[in-house]
Amino acid sequence: MPAVSRERFLGWFAELADIGRTDTGWNRVAWTPLEAEAQEWFRRTAEGIGLEVRRDGAGSLWAVEPGAGDGPYVCAGSHLDTQPDGGAYDGALGMVCALEAVATVRESGTGDRRPLAVIAFVDEEGARFRTSCFASQAIVGMLDVDAVLAAMGDAPAIYGVTRESLLASRAELAKVACFLEVHVEQGKALVDRGEVLGIADVLAPRRRYRAVFEGESNHAGTTPMAGRRDALVEAARFILAVDEAARARPGVVGTVGRVAIAPGSTNSIPGRVACTLDVRALDAAALDAVMDDLRGRFGDAEIVQESLNTGTEFDAGLRAALQRSAEASGVPAGDLPSFAGHDAGILAAHVPAAMIFVRNPTGASHTPTESASDDDCVAAAQVLAGAIAELADQA
Amino acid sequence: MPAVSRERFLGWFAELADIGRTDTGWNRVAWTPLEAEAQEWFRRTAEGIGLEVRRDGAGSLWAVEPGAGDGPYVCAGSHLDTQPDGGAYDGALGMVCALEAVATVRESGTGDRRPLAVIAFVDEEGARFRTSCFASQAIVGMLDVDAVLAAMGDAPAIYGVTRESLLASRAELAKVACFLEVHVEQGKALVDRGEVLGIADVLAPRRRYRAVFEGESNHAGTTPMAGRRDALVEAARFILAVDEAARARPGVVGTVGRVAIAPGSTNSIPGRVACTLDVRALDAAALDAVMDDLRGRFGDAEIVQESLNTGTEFDAGLRAALQRSAEASGVPAGDLPSFAGHDAGILAAHVPAAMIFVRNPTGASHTPTESASDDDCVAAAQVLAGAIAELADQA
Repeated sequence: MPAVSRERFLGWFAELADIGRTDTGWNRVAWTPLEAEAQEWFRRTAEGIGLEVRRDGAGSLWAVEPGAGDGPYVCAGSHLDTQPDGGAYDGALGMVCALEAVATVRESGTGDRRPLAVIAFVDEEGARFRTSCFASQAIVGMLDVDAVLAAMGDAPAIYGVTRESLLASRAELAKVACFLEVHVEQGKALVDRGEVLGIADVLAPRRRYRAVFEGESNHAGTTPMAGRRDALVEAARFILAVDEAARARPGVVGTVGRVAIAPGSTNSIPGRVACTLDVRALDAAALDAVMDDLRGRFGDAEIVQESLNTGTEFDAGLRAALQRSAEASGVPAGDLPSFAGHDAGILAAHVPAAMIFVRNPTGASHTPTESASDDDCVAAAQVLAGAIAELADQA
Repeated sequence: MPAVSRERFLGWFAELADIGRTDTGWNRVAWTPLEAEAQEWFRRTAEGIGLEVRRDGAGSLWAVEPGAGDGPYVCAGSHLDTQPDGGAYDGALGMVCALEAVATVRESGTGDRRPLAVIAFVDEEGARFRTSCFASQAIVGMLDVDAVLAAMGDAPAIYGVTRESLLASRAELAKVACFLEVHVEQGKALVDRGEVLGIADVLAPRRRYRAVFEGESNHAGTTPMAGRRDALVEAARFILAVDEAARARPGVVGTVGRVAIAPGSTNSIPGRVACTLDVRALDAAALDAVMDDLRGRFGDAEIVQESLNTGTEFDAGLRAALQRSAEASGVPAGDLPSFAGHDAGILAAHVPAAMIFVRNPTGASHTPTESASDDDCVAAAQVLAGAIAELADQA
């Protein structure tokens, strides 16, 4: 396996990082002209290494080796969109690694192998419309097409996405022989372990809830404290209880990220407050314990489960190929669970999929302070290239 | 002093209550067609009792006795707008009392007295643009004209209000000899005291603050609890501390009514949270103590005072006239402080002004459950009529 080109890799990464960069972070939010500009960069770059680029019905770009029809392809990729004021690595690192790895494998000679593809999934972050993993969900048939389109207004038109095209995009899944995604780590486990890469073994179970507290709205000036039923005061007790309940159990994280207050006026006692709750842990029993604790303490609240991810195992064969490639390249790598959703995690329930995480010195995610060293990024591209070469040769 | 007409009064009140009534409350929000419809009702009704109606540069309607030029007028009135899903009495009761009282005084013979006027101030509630007491602030010169117009978009055009007309509306204040406003009580003090009416002696000091908590935003799944600085958790402690600090001091009320979370995503740890804080008490030293307590406990937060009302005293002469009228009518009435802002409170710093509060069995405010009995409402109109008659005869 030849070495990837460090110079080309860093050049591409710098080009992509110039798109949507602002003083407060990267802003290539999905369905906006800056994500579209990144897609055009991807199209040019992929064509420059001899791939053919087309758009699928969900808005994603597929850069495939010519002449292989519907494949199926050995695929790598990630996403080009960022959170608002997001970081330089999330999504972008996976895209540049995929391009560099595929370019390197192609340069090593074609021979008789399976065709390769790089996929740039649209709207992985879901920042505008809470549609995270939009395009990967579309091709596996998990997207509630009518509901998301109702919420998205004219936005999908930027990529020509329609109800019909979204439904038709389900046919794309059959073109994926397997999918590999490189991603910056979203925590500091690799730093603590002294490893450069983590090979994802499992996507941790995640549950999302909506907790609603009912009080009584009234005038903020004329209602004595003694007569109040302030829904926000009860919600504040809940927010603290979530923090305590998660801290009490190692490996559990719990977050209230959004709060909606009715009527939401400076001059009115909150009458109704709805909070989101996101809890995750490798150990589902620990999640049960947290929720039992919260339900016991807030019996009057309405706590409704809104989504459930029971934990996805990544493909053992792909993980082994990645591990072999890391060893061949001398890159320290170990198993690492993922606590975040990714397109690879969506695909993993349907086709063989795997992920490589790259050590992140700050441990930050979804902010411009997320980071990875050039050496570690190039190492990830190298390990990916080795795994792709092995998987392609299996044909 | 002749008796007001109970039948006419209740008929007018029912007509006004039919405008903007919905299953969830009254919705005559300012600058919307339903407030405008209520204004048209007011115009017709005032013209029906021989008044001339014109609009001032802030959008308010003035119904004045003909032939008196610029007055000054003995004025009564209130507002026609409601909160979203507000009640039937707030504003409306004051308008119908003013019309009935002026009609009754006019029917009792004109003689040689000062001219009378009924004012329907626009946008007392400030529900859409946080512009409470918009029109009364405009005529006393307290409105930050450029700032509010920047926030209001095209809304002022519904009444032909422009920057120039708003600035010109300051000339209206000279037409007000005095101003009397009837209002449903926004608490249960009168019920507890067994009185029908309360004569406002003071508008309680009110302070508004913005409290900002800085944390560190990060991914809700991948950031262990131990490394978190969740701004919402700190804000929750603040919300509970406000509740405790106010409850610990009799006569103090404290409310966090709005919370803004950045980034405000289900999937992100809150990095920055801004809360509104509204505190009121008759005793300014008690407010100082609450704020010292909060600042001591939340030294890292940025707690900025955004507005200050040091407490307005209502006019002693008008209060005495109202008290004499109540005694003459046999209506139990005593002094009552106001803990809410009102147009009469804005005017009181510039011209003689006073208020009558009407007993409210539920004590509710800004909701459809606010209430007053027909008898109590008619008594208020009667007491207002008697005071207007006395004040007009002083000329």
